[in-house]
Amino acid sequence: MKIPQGAKRVFQGVIFDVYQWPQKMFDGSLATFEAFKRADSSAVITVVGDKILIQKQEQPDSKKSYVSLPGGRNDENEDPLDGAKRELLEETGYVSEDWELLYTREPFYKAEWTMYYYVARKCQYQQEPKLDGGEKITNTLISLEEFIMLSENPDFYEPDFTNFLLRLRLDPKKLEEFKNLLFK
Amino acid sequence: MKIPQGAKRVFQGVIFDVYQWPQKMFDGSLATFEAFKRADSSAVITVVGDKILIQKQEQPDSKKSYVSLPGGRNDENEDPLDGAKRELLEETGYVSEDWELLYTREPFYKAEWTMYYYVARKCQYQQEPKLDGGEKITNTLISLEEFIMLSENPDFYEPDFTNFLLRLRLDPKKLEEFKNLLFK
Repeated sequence: MKIPQGAKRVFQGVIFDVYQWPQKMFDGSLATFEAFKRADSSAVITVVGDKILIQKQEQPDSKKSYVSLPGGRNDENEDPLDGAKRELLEETGYVSEDWELLYTREPFYKAEWTMYYYVARKCQYQQEPKLDGGEKITNTLISLEEFIMLSENPDFYEPDFTNFLLRLRLDPKKLEEFKNLLFK
Repeated sequence: MKIPQGAKRVFQGVIFDVYQWPQKMFDGSLATFEAFKRADSSAVITVVGDKILIQKQEQPDSKKSYVSLPGGRNDENEDPLDGAKRELLEETGYVSEDWELLYTREPFYKAEWTMYYYVARKCQYQQEPKLDGGEKITNTLISLEEFIMLSENPDFYEPDFTNFLLRLRLDPKKLEEFKNLLFK
């Protein structure tokens, strides 16, 4: 969503800023509406040869590890593609000169927050990953078939992208198009 | 997620409460972590005869209408099943004596927020819906086949449940089980 102009920022946090505004209801009355804003995030489908790179991550505040795509929060005023390139390099050490935006999604109605899904083709390993003190990440290369089947992996915590993968499994034509998009 | 005991509530809003805590990182340093808490929500798969009830809704802060399941935010300390029953009656006028929890999901990592998906079988119309000033809702009965195909409707704004529907379409056995669950 787009938080209305004139909404008041009532909280500024480390991740979440909360806004409120008086909203006219259908019956003419006014109510206080609330939504949050957070940095947009980028995720990267990282093509390395005929494989795709995925990550196993641990978070300092959880005992469970999970599987994810490289990516993360964009810095303030950072272009989402620049954020994707920066995160890919930091987390994996890979670079690409062949990027394409796959799709965007607003995962949550009461938030001004967009997720950008990029394809990075023909990735090349450039340098050691630079993880910060809050990151523990292992990178693995898997086949396209294994990648599609992440949709059955309960540790793959990308609800929206799981949706995308399930649709590929439902439609062989879509899957073929996606394969061409990755490896063209 | 479960916000750690001892986390400090740094903001209390209309919908969102924000918490912060000092988190020990993997390298031993401390960082301020943040997450929000909001009321859990319930959604109802509402079985009426051999049909399922869905809604077309408008929100006061958006020009676009969308399609949804009956349900909404639980009141403070309200049992999620009681919340589901209350919302179903308020929004549709229907009641059921045959409820079952289908599944629960935490839609978002940085939040203490659970969504409950219930099946309400053999629903009976009891009274006129009681909408509040911020609700404009039309209820419609559709077939199971149409219900499953909500997964292709861009106006159906339930990303997680879309996932559930896509899985039914991928697996005829799961679909048969779901049908039995609704109409048994």
